[in-house]
Amino acid sequence: MKFRLEAEDQQTRARAGIVSTDHGDIETPIFMPVGTLGAVKAVQIYELKNFIGAQIILGNTYHLYLRPGTDVLEKAGGLHRFNGWDRPILTDSGGYQVHSLAQIRKIKEEGVEFRSHIDGSKHFFTPEGVMDIQRKIGADIIMAFDECTPYPCEMAYAKKSMHMTHRWLERCIKRFRETECAYGYSQTLFPIVQGSVYRDLRKESAEFISSMDMEGNAIGGLSVGEPDDEMYEMTELVCSILPQNKPRYLMGVGTPANILEGIALGVDMFDCVMPTRNARNGMIFTTQGIINIKNEKWKDDFSPIDEFSECEMMRTHTKAFLRHLVHTGEILGAQISSVNNLSLYLWLVREARKKIIDGTFVNWKKEMLVKLMQRL
Amino acid sequence: MKFRLEAEDQQTRARAGIVSTDHGDIETPIFMPVGTLGAVKAVQIYELKNFIGAQIILGNTYHLYLRPGTDVLEKAGGLHRFNGWDRPILTDSGGYQVHSLAQIRKIKEEGVEFRSHIDGSKHFFTPEGVMDIQRKIGADIIMAFDECTPYPCEMAYAKKSMHMTHRWLERCIKRFRETECAYGYSQTLFPIVQGSVYRDLRKESAEFISSMDMEGNAIGGLSVGEPDDEMYEMTELVCSILPQNKPRYLMGVGTPANILEGIALGVDMFDCVMPTRNARNGMIFTTQGIINIKNEKWKDDFSPIDEFSECEMMRTHTKAFLRHLVHTGEILGAQISSVNNLSLYLWLVREARKKIIDGTFVNWKKEMLVKLMQRL
Repeated sequence: MKFRLEAEDQQTRARAGIVSTDHGDIETPIFMPVGTLGAVKAVQIYELKNFIGAQIILGNTYHLYLRPGTDVLEKAGGLHRFNGWDRPILTDSGGYQVHSLAQIRKIKEEGVEFRSHIDGSKHFFTPEGVMDIQRKIGADIIMAFDECTPYPCEMAYAKKSMHMTHRWLERCIKRFRETECAYGYSQTLFPIVQGSVYRDLRKESAEFISSMDMEGNAIGGLSVGEPDDEMYEMTELVCSILPQNKPRYLMGVGTPANILEGIALGVDMFDCVMPTRNARNGMIFTTQGIINIKNEKWKDDFSPIDEFSECEMMRTHTKAFLRHLVHTGEILGAQISSVNNLSLYLWLVREARKKIIDGTFVNWKKEMLVKLMQRL
Repeated sequence: MKFRLEAEDQQTRARAGIVSTDHGDIETPIFMPVGTLGAVKAVQIYELKNFIGAQIILGNTYHLYLRPGTDVLEKAGGLHRFNGWDRPILTDSGGYQVHSLAQIRKIKEEGVEFRSHIDGSKHFFTPEGVMDIQRKIGADIIMAFDECTPYPCEMAYAKKSMHMTHRWLERCIKRFRETECAYGYSQTLFPIVQGSVYRDLRKESAEFISSMDMEGNAIGGLSVGEPDDEMYEMTELVCSILPQNKPRYLMGVGTPANILEGIALGVDMFDCVMPTRNARNGMIFTTQGIINIKNEKWKDDFSPIDEFSECEMMRTHTKAFLRHLVHTGEILGAQISSVNNLSLYLWLVREARKKIIDGTFVNWKKEMLVKLMQRL
């Protein structure tokens, strides 16, 4: 993997760059649609490419490990072959899901024992094992196995957990270096900064992570319930420490506003289930603001879903039609809403990139923050 | 509406023709995907056009009347404007749904009183009212209001019901002729032959319907649970009476085999929820046979869903991937399955048409019947 910075904003820490992988380039800042089970929910692969302009998608190791299982993915020749997505893929480490989804988990120095949320079967994730699984899934970017602390979190626990995450990282790197991609292309490993909302811990973690000298770095343990200001404060601090010449990935973030603020703080990569999950609940992000499409007021509004969308489907389908589909529980409502929200997110990062290169990022961001977050 | 016969098979009653409407031509024999609520379930409009090759879709008057309601459709400028489908649309009359879905219905000479299956609200459908509703929905082909008798059905009831359907037809035609399309294009009205599985009744009904001299005719009251042989016998009888120079529409039929047999008996148009409903239950129709995609045996079968499909998506996505999506309850599983099944149905009628024109229909049909209906 290579990272080349193309432009840096003069008034903020925002940057435009290019991440190069064996499955193609990613123009940053980028948003990565979440493909939990190897596919983005309610969205076709060709829609991701042709309508949304996705450049990289994310897969969840925990989910893929349980279903279809590492053996099936290995036989398929990796996730790219399995799902037909031939651009870059990033997998998380499963750390987050083990803590949020799995039943009865036991965290030990060795790793995490948990029971599947599907059938209660017992499994054991170790840093080494999670490297092996991600090698077999075949992601271009694989994530270190960490503990994502909840919010709020006692400082003592956050500190202990962070140190374990650091020790796990060393084991991850060791295993990663001893192994190879099963399918002949390059994989890279991103370590994850933890430390909850404590400046001292975040600083210590960011310094430790930086010293590992990996090809890219991630910020974890945020967007877990803390106020936005704390998230921004931690992100700013960590970005000021992480190496400037490597991509920075803020995990699990966020709203369009969160993403713009993150970009301004020097983040290059984002992922979040929000655009697709909220789509399935009737929340539509548009260039003009946020729509609750279930609302009666859209019943006979025959204006386009988003007349300024770059996605033609949103310029032709009307709010009234989408409202009807969502109101009647049609699957197609979730499909159109999901394509719309992801289009908006990808448009947003593409626009941000242009503005960073143009040198007009700050004023544009100010305008956008008001526009995108207003309720229509 | 115009209908032009292009070719007639020498060994069967199969024909190839073209139905011309103000929204474009329909090459017959044709299968019409069912868009119950104005959209085909789990399928995008552009998928219908570009991946499936649908030429006409069907809307259900009963459902559209209840949601979004005739007022919304009228304000939109008709269903074509509402859903963005600019090719022909056919609406059924609501007769079937009133009998199968609505709660507490009372059938009287005047019409049918029923309660909505959604909120229990009371409504009254008359032949005149149903013409007005379909005028407002704006379908290119609208259907007469009939009673669809169940199977089995006593002859006395079938006879009485058929005569009422005939009287309703006269009222439908009168109202249809007194009114105009709200949106400036032509609409045409198809009457419906009833008579359950009784030859005498079917003959009487087909003769009565023929005498009305409408632009096309439909065969109703079949595919309601009777054995296939009875369905074919009635279809053959009715087709031998209905005018040769007008399109014949066999309502609610059926499996790929039913459609091939119907074509051989002289039917030009078909509709059925089977390809989409069964898709949502994991039944996949392919050029090589029928697949229960939930089956464990597809877990690591990385061959294409259907390597001979005309739809590229089915030649690239694998059985293992689709099985994974369906197995894990992903919406995308229903999407891909629905596109696949409709692609197969539309491919089937396109092929049948070619073979009729080529003069090779009979042998091809014999082969196809075995192939398409085998369980893989």
